[in-house]
Amino acid sequence: MGEEISNKQILLKDYVNGFPKESDMELKISSVKLKVPEDSNTVLVKNLYLSCDPYMRPRMKKTEGSYTDSFIPGSPIVGFGVAKVVDSAHPKFKKDELVWGITGWEEYSVIKAPETLFKIHNTDVPLSYYTGILGMPGITAYGGFYELCSPKKGETVYVSAASGAVGQLVGQFAKLVGCYVVGSAGSKEKVELLKNKFGFDEAFNYKEEQDLSAALKRYFPDGIDIYFENVGGKMLDAVLLNMRIHGRIAVCGMISQYNLEQNEGVHNLFCLISKRLRMQGFLAVDYFPLYKKFVEMVTPHIKEGKVKYVEDIAEGIESAPGALVGLFSGRNVGKQVVLVARE
Amino acid sequence: MGEEISNKQILLKDYVNGFPKESDMELKISSVKLKVPEDSNTVLVKNLYLSCDPYMRPRMKKTEGSYTDSFIPGSPIVGFGVAKVVDSAHPKFKKDELVWGITGWEEYSVIKAPETLFKIHNTDVPLSYYTGILGMPGITAYGGFYELCSPKKGETVYVSAASGAVGQLVGQFAKLVGCYVVGSAGSKEKVELLKNKFGFDEAFNYKEEQDLSAALKRYFPDGIDIYFENVGGKMLDAVLLNMRIHGRIAVCGMISQYNLEQNEGVHNLFCLISKRLRMQGFLAVDYFPLYKKFVEMVTPHIKEGKVKYVEDIAEGIESAPGALVGLFSGRNVGKQVVLVARE
Repeated sequence: MGEEISNKQILLKDYVNGFPKESDMELKISSVKLKVPEDSNTVLVKNLYLSCDPYMRPRMKKTEGSYTDSFIPGSPIVGFGVAKVVDSAHPKFKKDELVWGITGWEEYSVIKAPETLFKIHNTDVPLSYYTGILGMPGITAYGGFYELCSPKKGETVYVSAASGAVGQLVGQFAKLVGCYVVGSAGSKEKVELLKNKFGFDEAFNYKEEQDLSAALKRYFPDGIDIYFENVGGKMLDAVLLNMRIHGRIAVCGMISQYNLEQNEGVHNLFCLISKRLRMQGFLAVDYFPLYKKFVEMVTPHIKEGKVKYVEDIAEGIESAPGALVGLFSGRNVGKQVVLVARE
Repeated sequence: MGEEISNKQILLKDYVNGFPKESDMELKISSVKLKVPEDSNTVLVKNLYLSCDPYMRPRMKKTEGSYTDSFIPGSPIVGFGVAKVVDSAHPKFKKDELVWGITGWEEYSVIKAPETLFKIHNTDVPLSYYTGILGMPGITAYGGFYELCSPKKGETVYVSAASGAVGQLVGQFAKLVGCYVVGSAGSKEKVELLKNKFGFDEAFNYKEEQDLSAALKRYFPDGIDIYFENVGGKMLDAVLLNMRIHGRIAVCGMISQYNLEQNEGVHNLFCLISKRLRMQGFLAVDYFPLYKKFVEMVTPHIKEGKVKYVEDIAEGIESAPGALVGLFSGRNVGKQVVLVARE
């Protein structure tokens, strides 16, 4: 019948408008049985790390017919995480195996469709990496950059939100290909990180620029071949003016827009025609089939220190609401993770 | 040294802001020698048909660093046309050959780079077709639809400005592939043409719709796979909301924006991510290498009456300014052509 123990959970209180606040979420102490019914095909996991990602913001609104369902008010937040199997009624999973994938913001979760979980085989790297470089953001950067942008040596690449979970990887991948890469971020500390840790050729603080288009012109006098879009709005407008003929824009996210009542208008789409640009949106799941190939490519780079990854780890599930909210003011430096339990 | 005869020309008076007016252009009676210098590599042509195309509007503004140069105030308008070689110092061209390509808005033009001209071999069709279905708009529709959109049988296709030079062809090509196709236009007459002449499955008058997104929802309850974009602005915003996952948008033109001081903002670009859309701009020249293949494909269809083409022919070079200006109020029904001379 299984032991029943307490289970701290982070619930969404209600749909959110505008900037999310910590008080939009609440801690609830619930309980959970440490066993799953034998004929259920489900898995019970203990969550070790939870991932805070910008795409979670749209799920906090009431959405109709959108691509992701809204979170359910009164229920735990749902997101990517790293977890350990406590009990399994699914033939594919065994007790004590490590997994990453969609889980709940709680200490223990019952996963009803465990087929979507990835098993963790390599524990030679920090486990938290499976919320980042070896998880969803990693495959996002890999698919969005290599597959969607078809980068070539010598091309010019611009990355916005460049010190974030995805951006820092895109910049480093661009350097591996032999591109010239410039990133923007929102603080001096992040700009330093881009240049000194991740090896971007140049970086700038967008908050210090009066004229974004002029800033881009400074770093890309001959234009941008590839833009990895994480922010949207005014930045996208400035980029469109600075793209080169046959440029490619991978639309990964638009974090500047997620807390607005109405999205800002983008005025320079005519550049799509005059410069024959390709602008393409994607989701990480589109590239999940490439996950194995990606891991084989990136793991040696991690071990040799050729690709670096910076995380911002908040301790304890109680810190999760603050960590998530902090993404939207840029408080995190690097990938925002929440440590729930060490083992 | 060659007879000198009078040459009516249509000049751009000055750069244009807002809606162009006939009075932005003027008729000038100049003169021309009917012979080109022997060592010049140039060709003298007599213009038979001139083409009025929406892309010409941006060339009437002062543009800096744009993809096309501005027209030169005080000089003849430049555009596509059908012409007959009067004299040639270029080895590729002989007197009396028919050509289509970039020429001047005047009775006779000296073409300094005749390599860009296409020779007309088939005179079994109306010569004016080489400004339309067998000219730049034809290759635009062919490349933009078949190459860029990769249409598949059973997919849903929406075409704006659908009775125009390009739109009417895209709709008919979509039917050849076996797609469901809906077009919009700006008058009852054009809507009838779309349904009864060009075989669109449905058509509507966008001017009669209060809510463009609701109109699209009515015709595409399950969404749009392919949007052939000719208008931009509010229509694009409405389309983005109605696209299907993995949809494609071929950005051919944005005629609704060309006369505005500032382009309208497009607010729904987040749909690019949530629906994984590809939005791609192109120019006809990108597909000029496919011209021969295109002509081989389309000519039998024209002869069998399977693909129809409607032209709006203005008589006389004096009518050219009015014909060009009329494009922006939608006065033309079908491809707008100016007949300069019958032979």
